[in-house]
Amino acid sequence: MNAKTIVFDHFGPPLDVLALRELTLPDPDGDKVLVQILKAPINPADINFIEGTYGIRPPLPATPGSEGVGLVRALGPEAGGFQEGDHVLLPHGTHTWSTGCLAEAPKLVAIPKSIPTEQAAMLWINPATAWRMLHDFVSLEEGDWFIQNAANSGVGTAAIQIARELGWKSVNVVRRPELVDELLSHGADVVLVDSPDLPAQVKEATGDAKIRLALNAVGGDNAARVTKCLAFGGTIVTYGAMARQPLKVSNAALIFKDIRFRGMWITKWYESATRADIDAMFGELLPMAEKGLLEAPIDAEFLLEDWPQAIKRATQGARKGKVLFRM
Amino acid sequence: MNAKTIVFDHFGPPLDVLALRELTLPDPDGDKVLVQILKAPINPADINFIEGTYGIRPPLPATPGSEGVGLVRALGPEAGGFQEGDHVLLPHGTHTWSTGCLAEAPKLVAIPKSIPTEQAAMLWINPATAWRMLHDFVSLEEGDWFIQNAANSGVGTAAIQIARELGWKSVNVVRRPELVDELLSHGADVVLVDSPDLPAQVKEATGDAKIRLALNAVGGDNAARVTKCLAFGGTIVTYGAMARQPLKVSNAALIFKDIRFRGMWITKWYESATRADIDAMFGELLPMAEKGLLEAPIDAEFLLEDWPQAIKRATQGARKGKVLFRM
Repeated sequence: MNAKTIVFDHFGPPLDVLALRELTLPDPDGDKVLVQILKAPINPADINFIEGTYGIRPPLPATPGSEGVGLVRALGPEAGGFQEGDHVLLPHGTHTWSTGCLAEAPKLVAIPKSIPTEQAAMLWINPATAWRMLHDFVSLEEGDWFIQNAANSGVGTAAIQIARELGWKSVNVVRRPELVDELLSHGADVVLVDSPDLPAQVKEATGDAKIRLALNAVGGDNAARVTKCLAFGGTIVTYGAMARQPLKVSNAALIFKDIRFRGMWITKWYESATRADIDAMFGELLPMAEKGLLEAPIDAEFLLEDWPQAIKRATQGARKGKVLFRM
Repeated sequence: MNAKTIVFDHFGPPLDVLALRELTLPDPDGDKVLVQILKAPINPADINFIEGTYGIRPPLPATPGSEGVGLVRALGPEAGGFQEGDHVLLPHGTHTWSTGCLAEAPKLVAIPKSIPTEQAAMLWINPATAWRMLHDFVSLEEGDWFIQNAANSGVGTAAIQIARELGWKSVNVVRRPELVDELLSHGADVVLVDSPDLPAQVKEATGDAKIRLALNAVGGDNAARVTKCLAFGGTIVTYGAMARQPLKVSNAALIFKDIRFRGMWITKWYESATRADIDAMFGELLPMAEKGLLEAPIDAEFLLEDWPQAIKRATQGARKGKVLFRM
């Protein structure tokens, strides 16, 4: 199969270093699967990946794209579990800004076709990040609360919806009052606009609930206030740093309140996850997606050929949601 | 038994608020034990406790003193396991700046008389803090390394000696070069003077060892450098804050290196510890103390009556070790 792929030979600003190239994909052998990629988003981490400022720097030349959805076009003789025409989520390391790829069958996740492809293309990272943070650090029970900042982000809205499905309650901290109604419509229990007296407001809004888990994608002073909302022994999990400020950790919080500071990087989780771990998670996430939950707002779709416009759109401030490639 | 005790009625500078009072201790009933206190140190936390700046503020009036060693003088009818004349460690909550107290037999730890009383009086907090930090966060195996700052502190030297006994290796970071030989004589494997290129020096001195545990009693920039010495998934445990600076936690350390930030407060540990937990720990620490390990340097001893001089000595900078009360 002939395919087109976006490539960069050295790290730098995407508009300077990216190029579209042709390649020929061989027929799949062994447990390989030939996949026609349908949709793949442009995530902020992809931009950092191209600039060379991400947590991993790939060998060059490299193709960006950390998630996406595809259509099975052909199967190697040992590639079981799939049929031509199946929709599949592409695993970490696929580099999805291409019209096609050869993937390993044991790493693909088949998904129902009832999930819109543009939504399916964004299930691998944000909803999975939210799922892991809600499960891997604190054992939440029915009715328990968690708190998060950046509550209107892709991970944030997924966390609200996952928690709602599982019987947990969310306190959501945002910077702009106009986000309150939107998050309530997603199922948020409490939405508060960040302010210096956030801890007191959280206390009142939750009936002085013992909050044992916080999710942080902001950092800086906001994260310090969110940390203050945690009960003795609570954990704050950092997965982003929108404020580009280090987390200031009060010594008293560590020593006297036993607050635990952790981080979450879904790439590392996928690296050590077993097939059973991945199936267990998507066994819960896919039915939620079928119900129309976990939907991320979309700003625009572009063809791979129009990558410069796509990059410009994705890196400008005023967007209504994600920018995706439609292959 | 008549006893003397140091008391304060309101929080403030020790020299302003402390007073020596007489009290009469009744004969022990139930499982109570009448203990003549022999020695008790003045710890920095005791000063904070009197000032009202510690993690807990007691109901007033209160007696300071968080550890000490005593002699069993009389036993209640249900106080088993001890004999008159035994030496015992006094548990948390005893308030040891007194010549005597009534303690609960189930909370006392009997110790060999071969351990000098001034050393026994300082076993409850520092060696226990070191022990817990080396055991409760990371599972160290034979030959594994840990790193610590404030390596010449009471906890620091205890950690060096405990690790040595258990087959673990220590990288010790100090501020003054004259401490290097002293720490090597305690059994330190590597001692380094803090500098901006600490991570590179640690790498070289340990043969690029994978360090998974750091102990921090300093905070600020020094703690940030120590954190950089940790391997992926490593844990830094904070038990003090000598630099009086919050810990700056880099978002990349949390997200991409999975560094874990925890705190340790031995008071809380004792609150939730079972008798079996405490016996298991002292079952290992007491033989080390008998061998002459876990010795803390002593600056001076004072009678309880001379408490103003003792406080002055304990709160001045230039000391050769701990200041203790000798009852």
